[in-house]
Amino acid sequence: MMKYLAILGSTGSIGTQALEVVQAHQDKFRVIGLSAGSNLTVLKKQIATFSPKIVSVRSKDLAEKLRTEVRSDVKIVYGEEGLIEVATQDDVDFVITALVGSIGLKPTIKAIEANKQIGLANKETLVSGGHLVMELAKQYDVPIIPIDSEHSAIYQSLNGEKNTQVNRIILTASGGPFRNKSREDLKNVTIADALKHPNWTMGAKITIDSATMMNKGLEVIEAHWLFQMPYEKIDVMIHPESIIHSMVEYIDRAIIAQLGTPDMKVPIQYAISYPDRLNLNIDALDLTQIGALHFFKPDLERFPSLKMAYQTGKEGGTMPTVLNAANEVVVGAFLQGKVPFMEIESIIDAILGQHQKVKHPSIEEIMEADRWARVATSTLIKSKGW
Amino acid sequence: MMKYLAILGSTGSIGTQALEVVQAHQDKFRVIGLSAGSNLTVLKKQIATFSPKIVSVRSKDLAEKLRTEVRSDVKIVYGEEGLIEVATQDDVDFVITALVGSIGLKPTIKAIEANKQIGLANKETLVSGGHLVMELAKQYDVPIIPIDSEHSAIYQSLNGEKNTQVNRIILTASGGPFRNKSREDLKNVTIADALKHPNWTMGAKITIDSATMMNKGLEVIEAHWLFQMPYEKIDVMIHPESIIHSMVEYIDRAIIAQLGTPDMKVPIQYAISYPDRLNLNIDALDLTQIGALHFFKPDLERFPSLKMAYQTGKEGGTMPTVLNAANEVVVGAFLQGKVPFMEIESIIDAILGQHQKVKHPSIEEIMEADRWARVATSTLIKSKGW
Repeated sequence: MMKYLAILGSTGSIGTQALEVVQAHQDKFRVIGLSAGSNLTVLKKQIATFSPKIVSVRSKDLAEKLRTEVRSDVKIVYGEEGLIEVATQDDVDFVITALVGSIGLKPTIKAIEANKQIGLANKETLVSGGHLVMELAKQYDVPIIPIDSEHSAIYQSLNGEKNTQVNRIILTASGGPFRNKSREDLKNVTIADALKHPNWTMGAKITIDSATMMNKGLEVIEAHWLFQMPYEKIDVMIHPESIIHSMVEYIDRAIIAQLGTPDMKVPIQYAISYPDRLNLNIDALDLTQIGALHFFKPDLERFPSLKMAYQTGKEGGTMPTVLNAANEVVVGAFLQGKVPFMEIESIIDAILGQHQKVKHPSIEEIMEADRWARVATSTLIKSKGW
Repeated sequence: MMKYLAILGSTGSIGTQALEVVQAHQDKFRVIGLSAGSNLTVLKKQIATFSPKIVSVRSKDLAEKLRTEVRSDVKIVYGEEGLIEVATQDDVDFVITALVGSIGLKPTIKAIEANKQIGLANKETLVSGGHLVMELAKQYDVPIIPIDSEHSAIYQSLNGEKNTQVNRIILTASGGPFRNKSREDLKNVTIADALKHPNWTMGAKITIDSATMMNKGLEVIEAHWLFQMPYEKIDVMIHPESIIHSMVEYIDRAIIAQLGTPDMKVPIQYAISYPDRLNLNIDALDLTQIGALHFFKPDLERFPSLKMAYQTGKEGGTMPTVLNAANEVVVGAFLQGKVPFMEIESIIDAILGQHQKVKHPSIEEIMEADRWARVATSTLIKSKGW
């Protein structure tokens, strides 16, 4: 049976790979809608190849520009309204939300309310709006299928099992480029040092998050919502080879794990093809060639961002939104050389301390907390004058 | 809902552990039937604790002896007829066949025909009668749930997935006590050397099978039948720590694995509680304490038993029966000091060479091949006069 897709964030890394999956399985998937920010060059090629019915871009200007350059039977929309129109198209079965930032939250919620299955690659949706999204997903009986390697691994390891029979979730973490550095060593790391991720090729922002382990902290919060697990039942384990992508321990102490070469194509295709699996033309994992897999406990004192994420997750309300927004701003500043590596965590901690938590925030209150945190973080960084 | 059990082979290692599971979950399981060989001391205790309706022992003499020693409301039967009566009791839902040897085949078949679910810990049932058992299981729509760590791991890793989407099965093997020995070294190994298994506490026979890797070879044949996989899609990987109990690679290159501390209680309870999982009071696996997991390719030249098992499995018919029977006799002779370690494989190879294969054997033809192989192997060993 043909599955009809909308891809929000189609010109990004996840979006383009999702389209490669569609390309490789044209007998199974068809693209109805695409959305992009401002990368019209790539978007036009995607329109030519996949002939979507509707396309959304960031602004009215971009929409008008695009209008003159693509076939007239493609509907062109823009802004948040446009995103929502793409996500809720009648004939769409499955919406991939690969948007970056809190802009992903509202279209995801609208898509769930329109009974679409969700492939979720937008972290903020669960970090900030997990309480809203999961409640709605339950109400509309819509599956939320994660598109990142760790949560996909857990989803795959839970397949066919009962949530109530889970003892704990074990998220694996490469430990990033600074796994073996002491806090003393960390004082002198440079931007270039932080951008060297051992296993995955990723964007600059997420590579820094991997170096501070904030990335794993945000994943803990996502896992909490996605799998409806209390924080006490979510563990993080350092596994430098990134081969075991995560695991689930059941009440009978059996552990189910998902393994593979580190390739985002696997979780992307899995989400699209779920509940089936389809051929994927990548190298098979050969454990005998890798030889050994290693495991370590994470040092929460050396990587306080992870500890901070657990605490923030437990506090709940708008706190995780602030954690995420402050982190985004401060990591951006680090990448511009405006903040020393070791101050990333102290800035975030200070902003969390300033925030007035809203307990059960609406989308609007989440957006407001997000805006507040960004301004407050920028202001604090400027005042430091590093 | 209460599940009613019959346990064939209740006084052996699997049987007693299965009863421990029942004991720990009396609200879920009740024992209807037990069968034992001649260990009346243990059997009487089991009867007192679990109050089965029917009990079978090996012979008429043993049955008469037992009759005088247990409550009169326990029906006592004996021999093959007795086993079948226990296995096909009207109110039994689930039959655990933990018998040793080819005697397990017929009761398993009769239990399937009586629509019982099967927990299978009797290797010969699949090695010799896989073609009969799996055909019947399909016909009667009866699940065959494996009770050994590797096949249970695969069963758990397949849970909820489609067989057609499997790329290959990867059976892990500890490599036994002689993993690092050359063929030259192997010439001088003693019975005591061979009995030192690195990870599992097992009987003498299976420990020797682990040292020759014949155990893994027989497991390959079992996996072929149980999971309906061609031999080309069944791999063996050496994993000395025995933590990953086996894995399944899917067509999208994702691998699902089951891990845990080496404890037979896990697969035994899983089979009994399937499709649910229940609490099991054993230590959780702590990978950070183990530190590293290692993987090697098996050397088929150094361990020819594994190669022989693949070939024999592919030849099919009565050949695997002969492989298994010859192996049992020759390992018995090795344990009595009558055969050098390195001759185990050459004896089996010679017997396989002598055998006239029956292509699609009936139970009777399987039993006959089994008898023939045992006699032929004993005769050959005697003629060698080591």
